[in-house]
Amino acid sequence: MPAIITLLTDYGTRDSYLAEVKGVLLANAPGAALVDVTHDIALGDLRAASYLLSRVWERFPRGTVHFVVVDPGVGSSRRALAAEARGRFFVAPDNGVLSPLPADARFVEVPVPADASPTFHGRDVFAPAAAQLVHGSALTHVGHVITDPYRSPLAAARQDGAAWVGEVVYIDRFGTLVTNLPGVAPGARIRVGGYDVGTLRRTFGDVKQGELVAFVGSNGTVEIAVRGGNAAGQLGVGVGAEVRS
Amino acid sequence: MPAIITLLTDYGTRDSYLAEVKGVLLANAPGAALVDVTHDIALGDLRAASYLLSRVWERFPRGTVHFVVVDPGVGSSRRALAAEARGRFFVAPDNGVLSPLPADARFVEVPVPADASPTFHGRDVFAPAAAQLVHGSALTHVGHVITDPYRSPLAAARQDGAAWVGEVVYIDRFGTLVTNLPGVAPGARIRVGGYDVGTLRRTFGDVKQGELVAFVGSNGTVEIAVRGGNAAGQLGVGVGAEVRS
Amino acid sequence: MPAIITLLTDYGTRDSYLAEVKGVLLANAPGAALVDVTHDIALGDLRAASYLLSRVWERFPRGTVHFVVVDPGVGSSRRALAAEARGRFFVAPDNGVLSPLPADARFVEVPVPADASPTFHGRDVFAPAAAQLVHGSALTHVGHVITDPYRSPLAAARQDGAAWVGEVVYIDRFGTLVTNLPGVAPGARIRVGGYDVGTLRRTFGDVKQGELVAFVGSNGTVEIAVRGGNAAGQLGVGVGAEVRS
Repeated sequence: MPAIITLLTDYGTRDSYLAEVKGVLLANAPGAALVDVTHDIALGDLRAASYLLSRVWERFPRGTVHFVVVDPGVGSSRRALAAEARGRFFVAPDNGVLSPLPADARFVEVPVPADASPTFHGRDVFAPAAAQLVHGSALTHVGHVITDPYRSPLAAARQDGAAWVGEVVYIDRFGTLVTNLPGVAPGARIRVGGYDVGTLRRTFGDVKQGELVAFVGSNGTVEIAVRGGNAAGQLGVGVGAEVRS
Repeated sequence: MPAIITLLTDYGTRDSYLAEVKGVLLANAPGAALVDVTHDIALGDLRAASYLLSRVWERFPRGTVHFVVVDPGVGSSRRALAAEARGRFFVAPDNGVLSPLPADARFVEVPVPADASPTFHGRDVFAPAAAQLVHGSALTHVGHVITDPYRSPLAAARQDGAAWVGEVVYIDRFGTLVTNLPGVAPGARIRVGGYDVGTLRRTFGDVKQGELVAFVGSNGTVEIAVRGGNAAGQLGVGVGAEVRS
Repeated sequence: MPAIITLLTDYGTRDSYLAEVKGVLLANAPGAALVDVTHDIALGDLRAASYLLSRVWERFPRGTVHFVVVDPGVGSSRRALAAEARGRFFVAPDNGVLSPLPADARFVEVPVPADASPTFHGRDVFAPAAAQLVHGSALTHVGHVITDPYRSPLAAARQDGAAWVGEVVYIDRFGTLVTNLPGVAPGARIRVGGYDVGTLRRTFGDVKQGELVAFVGSNGTVEIAVRGGNAAGQLGVGVGAEVRS
């Protein structure tokens, strides 16, 4: 199985930062396949980074290393981490961005070399660790075990009698409101931010152009869209808004 | 020859969709090289997708699989296709996006698994089929032969006496008007949308900064540009505008 | 060591140009790993391209070929070059974009085939040369030696008594002003464009949110930022502005 490293950052793609990281990865892990997840996360938006990570990490085969560096605290005393869960590896700052990992994930603290740039741990700390892991180093070879990684509780939907109450957790580039409401039975009535979205449909193709629609999205949770339009823009609803079934 | 899969979509690059597809591709086709064509096509713009596909598909070596998923009808009854032409393979919805393929292309209909997400056939239908094809599966192993794929006729230039009449088929990020007018003899006079562009030159370097110029572009057809400027913006001319020689 | 080709252009990522180049590279250099540096350079901005190249080229392992095509003079009589420095290779137009290469770099002029598109040397001249080089061709097999490549002197900081005087050489997507001032002793007082930035700190985390700060950046030179803000936007300072310590 060839070595794979995915990259999820807020670096953008117009500066040299991402390519510097890739140079270090390929110099230290010759032949690794590099896959961009995204680099367009809003600066320091850990919630978006966690959500995107939650969707992709298990799609990649065992042995994959996920480089997840959204790091507003770079250069402070926050720890640098590496982790392993279900055969996939991770390098990331200890700021909660790895919260989607399951409870049995294992974590180590990666030492920061004395000559690391205080503003670019992606290149000087996380890339070398990722290269070691992708070439088969044991997790405990890149750092010492810790049992208290910072975890920010992911928003979870809760039951309220027969209904579910959750929230909008992400808005995609199409303006679709992705919620954490589980895929409830077809026919359930969905409400978000004061709007009645109607009953749950199979897909957005089940309503006319311009109509609001709720359906179970490709991640298994309820999504709210305007067919051919932008639900977030039209409803004025953002991440954190309450959603009910 | 290593396996290559190119990707041409309207997914954008800021969400998880593209990375989910790549995870499925690499989990099912270990070692495949993934090449992004573009993901910045305007949502559902089949005409732009077809044009870009027409320019790139034969540049890649035989055996390459082109994943072409601009799919406004996802979840409806439109068919999912795979195809083969001149040794290259394709997976795409049956909406005309594969119209640039030559007349002798072969097509199959790919079955949609019962558990495929109705809104994400890229991940659940097209990616698994692409992975099969890149690893050498015969076209007929991923679906059953069909002979009636939907083809939207590509705009073709026609002769009008000694002149050619065609149209603008694409506008690139530099604002250059790409037309379907064949590379006629130097000296021909070019007109677009009521403007006289002057005689056909060899390249945009043959006029001064800020001047309008027509030349035979890198795809072998006439292009109209403003040197150092944006022809589409300055002329107010869009896709579909008539062009004459 | 697997073959690596990096790509640094102003092509953008929404048209077919970049994918056409990649098709030619993979058709001629099967198995090469392609790494995007960036394609979002402002059209024809040679200064930004040179700066980004200076940061990345030595991060990649020996044998890497850097495709650096920011080429406002394409189709004119400017020469096409290939080069070698410290075991890395380069293809680029002869317009100064390779100025970051060290004095002992070797250069050849690459012939332009008669059938090359006058507007797309990236695809028809530079990509075939890059493919030859990545597969081990000697530099002198892709062109004839020249000793007078065009070099635009890179802005260098100078000493003015005990002080250093330099300039802003790049502004990154975070609005950070990257200067060519060497990493002077902590405690030095930094000024830019009439503003007193205060004494040099270790990192931007050493000041409060919204405050201006100077520190030695990840490239070893002084950078000026606003913590959590956009220094270029707030100060109205651009590339070329004087900076002093």
